[in-house]
Amino acid sequence: MTTTASLSGYLTEIGHVLNVRVYFEDTDFSGVVYHARYLHFMERARTDFLRLRGIDHRTLAAGGFGEPMAFAVRHMDIDFLRPARIDDILEVRTETLLLGGARIVLGQEIRLGATTLVTAKVKVAVISPEGKPRRMPERVMAVLGAASAAPQQPPA
Amino acid sequence: MTTTASLSGYLTEIGHVLNVRVYFEDTDFSGVVYHARYLHFMERARTDFLRLRGIDHRTLAAGGFGEPMAFAVRHMDIDFLRPARIDDILEVRTETLLLGGARIVLGQEIRLGATTLVTAKVKVAVISPEGKPRRMPERVMAVLGAASAAPQQPPA
Amino acid sequence: MTTTASLSGYLTEIGHVLNVRVYFEDTDFSGVVYHARYLHFMERARTDFLRLRGIDHRTLAAGGFGEPMAFAVRHMDIDFLRPARIDDILEVRTETLLLGGARIVLGQEIRLGATTLVTAKVKVAVISPEGKPRRMPERVMAVLGAASAAPQQPPA
Amino acid sequence: MTTTASLSGYLTEIGHVLNVRVYFEDTDFSGVVYHARYLHFMERARTDFLRLRGIDHRTLAAGGFGEPMAFAVRHMDIDFLRPARIDDILEVRTETLLLGGARIVLGQEIRLGATTLVTAKVKVAVISPEGKPRRMPERVMAVLGAASAAPQQPPA
Repeated sequence: MTTTASLSGYLTEIGHVLNVRVYFEDTDFSGVVYHARYLHFMERARTDFLRLRGIDHRTLAAGGFGEPMAFAVRHMDIDFLRPARIDDILEVRTETLLLGGARIVLGQEIRLGATTLVTAKVKVAVISPEGKPRRMPERVMAVLGAASAAPQQPPA
Repeated sequence: MTTTASLSGYLTEIGHVLNVRVYFEDTDFSGVVYHARYLHFMERARTDFLRLRGIDHRTLAAGGFGEPMAFAVRHMDIDFLRPARIDDILEVRTETLLLGGARIVLGQEIRLGATTLVTAKVKVAVISPEGKPRRMPERVMAVLGAASAAPQQPPA
Repeated sequence: MTTTASLSGYLTEIGHVLNVRVYFEDTDFSGVVYHARYLHFMERARTDFLRLRGIDHRTLAAGGFGEPMAFAVRHMDIDFLRPARIDDILEVRTETLLLGGARIVLGQEIRLGATTLVTAKVKVAVISPEGKPRRMPERVMAVLGAASAAPQQPPA
Repeated sequence: MTTTASLSGYLTEIGHVLNVRVYFEDTDFSGVVYHARYLHFMERARTDFLRLRGIDHRTLAAGGFGEPMAFAVRHMDIDFLRPARIDDILEVRTETLLLGGARIVLGQEIRLGATTLVTAKVKVAVISPEGKPRRMPERVMAVLGAASAAPQQPPA
């Protein structure tokens, strides 16, 4: 295993797990993580979930899955339960809750050890470069819907 | 009017309006504003709403309203309807929807001209420096609850 | 004067001044502004300096000044002298030090009242959408080089 | 090796190497990484360099190395040579160039494969919580100055 292998997290039977470190840049004057930063952590996790299933943003934008397209967040419902602090290593867990023709609903959770810090329900749509809604390409649907036959475990 | 007067926006009969410019830093690779940046715009607006009512974060943290305390976002429900773009001047509108002893619920809306781009319901709580929930000080309640007698208009 | 007029700062005889508020998002765990945020403040000031001279990024990228192009920072030499804090209103001062065919050198200073917090020398180049260096268009040169005949004062 | 082991990079004979992924949040409207984000990547690398040598920000701030203190960036000289793009995995290399009683000078380089994208010379000082300059504690000096006896290799 190379040093970059774990950068993208790992797939589970029902989704994906990404470890994220809290740095100076993520904290604010109050001493804990700035609330909007959790959305960054969740976006990184969604990106790496897709990446490990074979879909990356650059290819998507370049038309590698049909016409050029991108994912856009349409709705978020977020509970900020407990704060994360500098130096923490967080675990971002992502699951597909619903997979429709025009949108995906994901459940995301940020944990510190056994403690849940943030939970979110995220609705994502596929859009054209001009921002018009698009149907999700079959290939993307197939990739996202299929539970990985042999779920990858966290490397020992 | 000085050049900094309008930096904090203005109070309305039922809330507050802040104008925000979209810069390079707010956009991403997709060409539009990164979704988490709207939370920054809304946090700036909440801060300036409080500021124009006489409450600033530094005084709050230093115990100027009783024991040292801070506001923390507990819940957000956000609809991302249309994207903002570089150079846009956005209008962030904030209203108090509910004012309880331990939390405030605010309604926020980001507009470009007559078009609504983002709407959010934001639940904010008062916490101690250690993150414990605190009752909202009477003085803060009074300030937030009172509709300004003579609402300030946008300077002509 | 509308509430948005002062959002872009104002031109001076030799450059530009922009007022910037420090918000939660700009601070970190140490209680002061995160060092990289000063680069954001300086980028906003450069953008508004160009804007008040009639050049905006969207038009530039769309080919409104010849072929599509963008400005890119090539070099920065930055002194972080004193920290800014939450709620501060900073003044970002920008001057053109050198205006060549392929690059601009700007001097930038961030002040809190009479105190200088950060100074920087910034070398900016014009590039194509693919990142290739380009000669600066005559029209951009003319606009940037010409000291405004009647320098705008801060609105009283 | 656990999945989080490589999160902090690894020590080399003369410094430290950290791998960083470029996400949506790091890019801007121009299609490449926003210039100030490279300072974040370099700050993460400095933090992890210290961490692997046994110094973390929380302990430092809590007085674990004598009086409470923090590191603050005093000067940066940065060359932005080539842009990074979304999905790139960058390598941030850090070396101690000078280690004095009141400051450290570090050399940092961001690479994509064999290509150097950004280089920087960074002067860092030790300060009190009130921002006053402090002498670097012996223990911090010792830790930073000592080349690790058996430099850790990237895990195979």
